[in-house]
Amino acid sequence: MIIVMKPGASKKETDHVIKTVEERGLKAVLLHGTERDVIACLGDKRDIAQDFWNAIPGVEKAMPILSPYKMASREVKPTPSQIRISKGFSFGGKKIGVIAGPCAVENKAQLLSIANSVKKSGAIALRGGAFKPRTSPYSFQGLEEEGLEYLAETREEVGLPVVTEVLSPEHVEMVGRYADILQIGTRNMGNFVLLKAVGEQPKPVILKRGMSATLDEFLLAAEYILSRGNTNVILCERGIRTFENHTRFTLSLSAVPQLKQLTHLPVIVDPSHGTGYRHLVNPMSKGAVAVGADGLLIEVHVDPEKAFVDGAQTITTDNFDTLMKELKPVAQAVGRDI
Amino acid sequence: MIIVMKPGASKKETDHVIKTVEERGLKAVLLHGTERDVIACLGDKRDIAQDFWNAIPGVEKAMPILSPYKMASREVKPTPSQIRISKGFSFGGKKIGVIAGPCAVENKAQLLSIANSVKKSGAIALRGGAFKPRTSPYSFQGLEEEGLEYLAETREEVGLPVVTEVLSPEHVEMVGRYADILQIGTRNMGNFVLLKAVGEQPKPVILKRGMSATLDEFLLAAEYILSRGNTNVILCERGIRTFENHTRFTLSLSAVPQLKQLTHLPVIVDPSHGTGYRHLVNPMSKGAVAVGADGLLIEVHVDPEKAFVDGAQTITTDNFDTLMKELKPVAQAVGRDI
Amino acid sequence: MIIVMKPGASKKETDHVIKTVEERGLKAVLLHGTERDVIACLGDKRDIAQDFWNAIPGVEKAMPILSPYKMASREVKPTPSQIRISKGFSFGGKKIGVIAGPCAVENKAQLLSIANSVKKSGAIALRGGAFKPRTSPYSFQGLEEEGLEYLAETREEVGLPVVTEVLSPEHVEMVGRYADILQIGTRNMGNFVLLKAVGEQPKPVILKRGMSATLDEFLLAAEYILSRGNTNVILCERGIRTFENHTRFTLSLSAVPQLKQLTHLPVIVDPSHGTGYRHLVNPMSKGAVAVGADGLLIEVHVDPEKAFVDGAQTITTDNFDTLMKELKPVAQAVGRDI
Amino acid sequence: MIIVMKPGASKKETDHVIKTVEERGLKAVLLHGTERDVIACLGDKRDIAQDFWNAIPGVEKAMPILSPYKMASREVKPTPSQIRISKGFSFGGKKIGVIAGPCAVENKAQLLSIANSVKKSGAIALRGGAFKPRTSPYSFQGLEEEGLEYLAETREEVGLPVVTEVLSPEHVEMVGRYADILQIGTRNMGNFVLLKAVGEQPKPVILKRGMSATLDEFLLAAEYILSRGNTNVILCERGIRTFENHTRFTLSLSAVPQLKQLTHLPVIVDPSHGTGYRHLVNPMSKGAVAVGADGLLIEVHVDPEKAFVDGAQTITTDNFDTLMKELKPVAQAVGRDI
Repeated sequence: MIIVMKPGASKKETDHVIKTVEERGLKAVLLHGTERDVIACLGDKRDIAQDFWNAIPGVEKAMPILSPYKMASREVKPTPSQIRISKGFSFGGKKIGVIAGPCAVENKAQLLSIANSVKKSGAIALRGGAFKPRTSPYSFQGLEEEGLEYLAETREEVGLPVVTEVLSPEHVEMVGRYADILQIGTRNMGNFVLLKAVGEQPKPVILKRGMSATLDEFLLAAEYILSRGNTNVILCERGIRTFENHTRFTLSLSAVPQLKQLTHLPVIVDPSHGTGYRHLVNPMSKGAVAVGADGLLIEVHVDPEKAFVDGAQTITTDNFDTLMKELKPVAQAVGRDI
Repeated sequence: MIIVMKPGASKKETDHVIKTVEERGLKAVLLHGTERDVIACLGDKRDIAQDFWNAIPGVEKAMPILSPYKMASREVKPTPSQIRISKGFSFGGKKIGVIAGPCAVENKAQLLSIANSVKKSGAIALRGGAFKPRTSPYSFQGLEEEGLEYLAETREEVGLPVVTEVLSPEHVEMVGRYADILQIGTRNMGNFVLLKAVGEQPKPVILKRGMSATLDEFLLAAEYILSRGNTNVILCERGIRTFENHTRFTLSLSAVPQLKQLTHLPVIVDPSHGTGYRHLVNPMSKGAVAVGADGLLIEVHVDPEKAFVDGAQTITTDNFDTLMKELKPVAQAVGRDI
Repeated sequence: MIIVMKPGASKKETDHVIKTVEERGLKAVLLHGTERDVIACLGDKRDIAQDFWNAIPGVEKAMPILSPYKMASREVKPTPSQIRISKGFSFGGKKIGVIAGPCAVENKAQLLSIANSVKKSGAIALRGGAFKPRTSPYSFQGLEEEGLEYLAETREEVGLPVVTEVLSPEHVEMVGRYADILQIGTRNMGNFVLLKAVGEQPKPVILKRGMSATLDEFLLAAEYILSRGNTNVILCERGIRTFENHTRFTLSLSAVPQLKQLTHLPVIVDPSHGTGYRHLVNPMSKGAVAVGADGLLIEVHVDPEKAFVDGAQTITTDNFDTLMKELKPVAQAVGRDI
Repeated sequence: MIIVMKPGASKKETDHVIKTVEERGLKAVLLHGTERDVIACLGDKRDIAQDFWNAIPGVEKAMPILSPYKMASREVKPTPSQIRISKGFSFGGKKIGVIAGPCAVENKAQLLSIANSVKKSGAIALRGGAFKPRTSPYSFQGLEEEGLEYLAETREEVGLPVVTEVLSPEHVEMVGRYADILQIGTRNMGNFVLLKAVGEQPKPVILKRGMSATLDEFLLAAEYILSRGNTNVILCERGIRTFENHTRFTLSLSAVPQLKQLTHLPVIVDPSHGTGYRHLVNPMSKGAVAVGADGLLIEVHVDPEKAFVDGAQTITTDNFDTLMKELKPVAQAVGRDI
């Protein structure tokens, strides 16, 4: 931590800051600058919030040197983590994994038909929402446990692990009984009670970036899960909120190589929610693979027009098959496979 | 809903859209434009997501005419709602209500001292967090039920109703037993399970705007609570996430007059979280009152430097007393009182 | 400047940074931290871009201590500047100045009628665009020199100083011949050639904040003008671009008290462009005065519906008269006058 | 245009809107909705600003159907434009063109050395700034005409066309004498006087997206150039301003496929400015090619640490050579070449 004193800070204020720093177990080095005093704090106390220092009289600003997360960082674990999701596939290796399926589970036949199709095209897991976080209370809220049952049955019949979202701590146990991978949605990245709950069970978690979260905040959300004992966290960039209006969100692909430098956790991309329009799913999937994503999460439906939710960003099973074929050479061009 | 067809849309596609519109119980009027066909849909079906229409082949975009919320709108209830929080005070009337207190409840003595002080200065309720949503898992997470007990005891001794945040559906009942007003924080505005839970109990709810929520999304979150039966919702602007870096968030004061035009619900402002710096709390409080806010939510501590949480944005009880004196003429200048 | 080395930086890299720091005339202090070395650079060299340091091998990040601007800062000039714009009025004193007029000069009669009206209501200057920066090449681009002539004639007849925008360095001399105050619009805040040009002439300049400029960038733009010799700069907050869609821009009122702490220059607010809607002009004007603005810039027309430009955000002369009456008690409530 | 009336709009107001629509040469169709009247305006009058309609009493909002630009649109010219920049290369064909060079021209030897190197690696043009738009007035402002001379000499010696930025209308003629392609920087995308000036000369123009411009605003800026007679416009995505802080800007790659659907003009990407960090240039270049960019603009220097400007985002000539080799298979994977 570097603490910058205000231009007119008194010696008494500066001494008080130094004393506080040392009381907290850090070493303080005072530097007299041209216009301001600066106190460098040596030692690793990233659990003391930056805000604490900012509150002390005479302090202009506190600037952290260390990242606020530990277990998620490359400094603590320099090699990439591999998160196993089935016998045949782990995220974080050479092979890029594509998870596909409908936004919402609607009925058994629909799910089975989509699952068979995406498996044939090369998907490594099936996605489908049973609990749906909807902006409007008047929109379809999901089939809930019935949807989870369809997912589990489909897994048995098709042989694909299933991914589904969990919305509430009280549902974690139930969802964990049916699903192979739990998903935390963008609106719940800051739902710390839920993060703790999924951190206390063993199934892998896909953690979506909050739509206005910085990468530090994103990795701290992962840290909530890791610090409770579950190290199987897969990060997912899904678009951030900006002034842009040609897409529903701005898919920030630079987050992928940056995250892969900061953390050992795998990073996947959701081009469906990240753009909101199906004509952008194909090019942005290619872009995601080219920048180094470990996987993709794509909304696919046999008949998007009939989808209960998110039809505008859902591609057909045929389009998905084409996309998978087109992604292969892109993956190979960057030394990966799919 | 206005549906704009793509320039090259076929007659078959247009006919299919018209048929779909009519199947949904709306009247379709086809307009042949210079370069595009446009289908105006007459009738009130705001429960059909805009997204549904966007998914139909040949459609370029669907543009809603009606707001997506109903119960929260001025059209349904043209007169301002008054939300009673104690014998002596309701939000939404001529008198502006200021809620003050520490970010987190730390111990009984601290809370009592702050409560007595802010009451004397004119606060109408006491705030204090018992469950704290913290960005880092290593930060203080609140005293939980012990904190709620201190709040309830302080209410008895001081005579101020208490406001505290609830983080999880499973805590709603417990928090409701101790608190007079439940607060939903910015990170939980999109936690729809929690919104439903507070909608099913009778205590007033302060709903903070999500830091990247549009006003439509904000009012739809309120609609989740209203539609479950709890009509005592107070909206709170608390800063949005933008590129600005001189503050932690950008306090969007124009949201206040705009919300008051769209909805009958009272609107308050949190200048502490909305700026992140204590030197901005005084001017932004005045600004909030001047633009028409019905109340303020301010972090106050006897010794901000010793506060466990958010010290940098917390003002002292002395500063608060001064602020209340300075706010009075501003309130009167806009035809209100405080 | 604080230079943070990468975790694995070699001694050779660290030595090279220290040598570079010292070659640039700064004193280097090396601090061995727990996980990283940090080099504190003592001395005032704010003309060396932060970017320069970031480019050196082994450097993780460079963090500036000093603000990048000098002449605009309170440290260089602690007392507020007063910018005189007429015999009767200077910006930066106790009295708040309101500049009013049409977005574009349309004809002499229109201008004269508006000028007489706003003067009577208490405006201290008349605004009106002769060169209009329009998003579309097909929109009205302004009357150019003819418009300037109308402005100058109106000044003579009504006795109000006139403010008008200059779009290009080659027009600075001509606009300066007619106008009393030159305005630099939001789209030209980063037009450094134009900033230099208005810095080399003596008339006061209203510098509008770029719609995506940080306060540092805004003050550096002012510094371009100041450093060329013209110290008569008035800063204007006019809304920033964010994800919000209920307004055309988000008027960031917290910029006002923050700027007034950082700089001695007066700060005014444009609630017309800052919101884009006339129903928000009245409340946001009051908010601007309450947070400490030194003035307002408001679009007024006798018949907004007939205005060539920006009708939706323009208020009538009657509304303006009411607004001025309503602003007076707000100004007095915060120790100012209007 | 679709005009939505306010809920309580009177018949007189509605009739007045219809009359105004018809006076402007459009056909008005009145639709009585459940809660509001809607007036559909048929005909192509995109030169009437949306704002005009919003200003009429009783109007709630006006929603445009047609895009505000014409010449830049695919509707006017459905096939992709090819912009020739040398005997051997045109932007907009199968081959992706990479422009490389230093941020600023520093001296002849440096430029020659970089030019020879990037040509060998496969660059199709040399970039280099002679007039530099710098945030701070104390930063290096470029060699101006001397820099242009070095660029022209280097072109003769190396055989690469040269790209350089023009900052001011009065320099357009001079820059055009030396350079093969003129660049308009992000800060000047809304400098309409400059856009008109480059629209009246024949050299190709690289138009960078304003850092907070929507795609409509970006294409309208192109329209300024096209409508003055110069149809050789190349669009460049260079990062937008968002809340993200791990990069200097957020490179919005979804703008590429979206622009290519809206316009016939070629679209290139600047991953150097778009991220601000050299370690992101390689992955984001691959991402840009994968999403369909027609070219790249990359900052390259023999010794980035010694670069006068933007060292932190500049890659070495060696890194550039590697990048070009790595881009080839990515280009081929999406059916292009490089």
